[in-house]
Amino acid sequence: MEHDVPPVLSLDIGGTKLAAGVVTGDGLIHGWQLAPTRREEGPRRVLSRLFDLGRKAVAEAGAPEVAAVGISCGGPLDTATGVVQCPPHLPGWIDVPVVALAAEAFGVAAVIENDATAAALGEHRYGAGRGTTTMLYLTISTGVGGGSVIGGRLHRGAAGNGGELGHVMVRPGGRPCTCGRNGCLEAYASGTAIAERAREALAAGRPSSLSSIELPTAEDVSLAAAAGDPLAAEIWDETTWALGSALTDLVNAFEPELVVLGGGVTRSGARLLDPVAAAVARDAMPPAARAVRIEPARLGAGVCVVGAGAVAHDLVSGKTDA
Amino acid sequence: MEHDVPPVLSLDIGGTKLAAGVVTGDGLIHGWQLAPTRREEGPRRVLSRLFDLGRKAVAEAGAPEVAAVGISCGGPLDTATGVVQCPPHLPGWIDVPVVALAAEAFGVAAVIENDATAAALGEHRYGAGRGTTTMLYLTISTGVGGGSVIGGRLHRGAAGNGGELGHVMVRPGGRPCTCGRNGCLEAYASGTAIAERAREALAAGRPSSLSSIELPTAEDVSLAAAAGDPLAAEIWDETTWALGSALTDLVNAFEPELVVLGGGVTRSGARLLDPVAAAVARDAMPPAARAVRIEPARLGAGVCVVGAGAVAHDLVSGKTDA
Repeated sequence: MEHDVPPVLSLDIGGTKLAAGVVTGDGLIHGWQLAPTRREEGPRRVLSRLFDLGRKAVAEAGAPEVAAVGISCGGPLDTATGVVQCPPHLPGWIDVPVVALAAEAFGVAAVIENDATAAALGEHRYGAGRGTTTMLYLTISTGVGGGSVIGGRLHRGAAGNGGELGHVMVRPGGRPCTCGRNGCLEAYASGTAIAERAREALAAGRPSSLSSIELPTAEDVSLAAAAGDPLAAEIWDETTWALGSALTDLVNAFEPELVVLGGGVTRSGARLLDPVAAAVARDAMPPAARAVRIEPARLGAGVCVVGAGAVAHDLVSGKTDA
Repeated sequence: MEHDVPPVLSLDIGGTKLAAGVVTGDGLIHGWQLAPTRREEGPRRVLSRLFDLGRKAVAEAGAPEVAAVGISCGGPLDTATGVVQCPPHLPGWIDVPVVALAAEAFGVAAVIENDATAAALGEHRYGAGRGTTTMLYLTISTGVGGGSVIGGRLHRGAAGNGGELGHVMVRPGGRPCTCGRNGCLEAYASGTAIAERAREALAAGRPSSLSSIELPTAEDVSLAAAAGDPLAAEIWDETTWALGSALTDLVNAFEPELVVLGGGVTRSGARLLDPVAAAVARDAMPPAARAVRIEPARLGAGVCVVGAGAVAHDLVSGKTDA
């Protein structure tokens, strides 16, 4: 039923990367483009380069025209007015009317969605969540974000930012989180938080194979843990514990049939998924634990572009949800 | 639009009390009946008395006939097959086909709903949540339960028990919870948990005005805290902290426009609501915190009967949700 919608242009505004592509009704990306954000240049110049990237995607896709523009961006943003308010990944972007600017630049209707919410829609319509009624999606990356599909429809929430699934508290009074609270899932399971804990432990003189790496990343920690390094294993175990604890809370609260885990940290595969799934199976309420599956995302790095494309498809076809 | 549905009989199976009433399309209860559960008598005798109570409600309501029977009961239960599986508040009730038995007893269709889920629907349709799109309901009573309305529809979840909002973890490794995990909201904020902490502290020799009461209840703790008793204040502060922390998680995850708090512990009014609302306003993500209101429930002790009545109304009218 999605295959007869016309192609749309999809744009993703990340803190480090811009992406663009033409998304067709089958969820495929055509004319995929990537460029550095260089956010320090400010919204006017970045958006000018983003729109150029979009034009290049349209040209390379061989699409004579696109029916709408879908934009994905980290929140907080006002989806109703199409304004990016003050996202932490884009310092200085205060109340930027991105939707109006995009509509003007491309001469078609435009729409914006919180990036993790868009990604949840993308995985639901074209990825791991196809056919599910209640699905949670978490992206474990620089930060931890997420979104939900409930009753088959994308849940946007009262302020339009959907659920912030990365800000479930796992340790009261714990590590400071970007949200201002302490001990959130994001403060333990994000790639940033994994790398920070490793660097702090090394700076405190803890012996580890990681000390041979100048600035160890989350992936370095994952690999060293797999190789038996005790410090890395300790950090990794805390990471999977935090994720298992937060997912147990979320599985209890939403009783979903599927939780999809995406983002760079999930490249660790079973080293991340297996202990997390075991914690949920052990700790969640039995009916919820029996009903849920936990699976890796399928759409990879283009998930936000696919998701924002799906939002734009819905705009064109008059649908208001997933 | 709800006013033209015919009256239904509503039955509530609690751990200590049975209730019955005829619920009309305006959400009012007629012929209200209450009786002790005496659960030790087992399902056959308890259900026989419950159905008698239902007949009495129908007679006293002056309703010549009811169009359906709605039943509310603590989970876990299988709403699809109408079977009560093994609820902790009814020991020995294993796989009891309550819906089939009620349909046979009254000669009309019957339906069962998790009691907290039914209560969420009741508050949404007739109480504090009228007109809201996304609403959470928590009942803080012997235990802590809850339900959610999302996109204007009751959310039943993948196993039909809706969300278990009382099992958000607030303190890892904390007090044991009835669910088998440690440190859940229920293990701190339920009336049972409040009273237990007081009794433990008194048994440990902590001085308090509560020591003059043989078995202090949650309400005694609330009153003593208000009167300045230091031990009671400490327990009360921990209670509102736990509730504020769990609600912050839930407000972040669902981004609701309204959270409704009901159940016996909320009779403490502002002593409970004010610190909890302040914690959410301070700690939740700013867009979610700005979008949400936290309000007391309006339907009182009959909320599950009203809610199960609404479920039965939907059965009659062919609606499948709120």
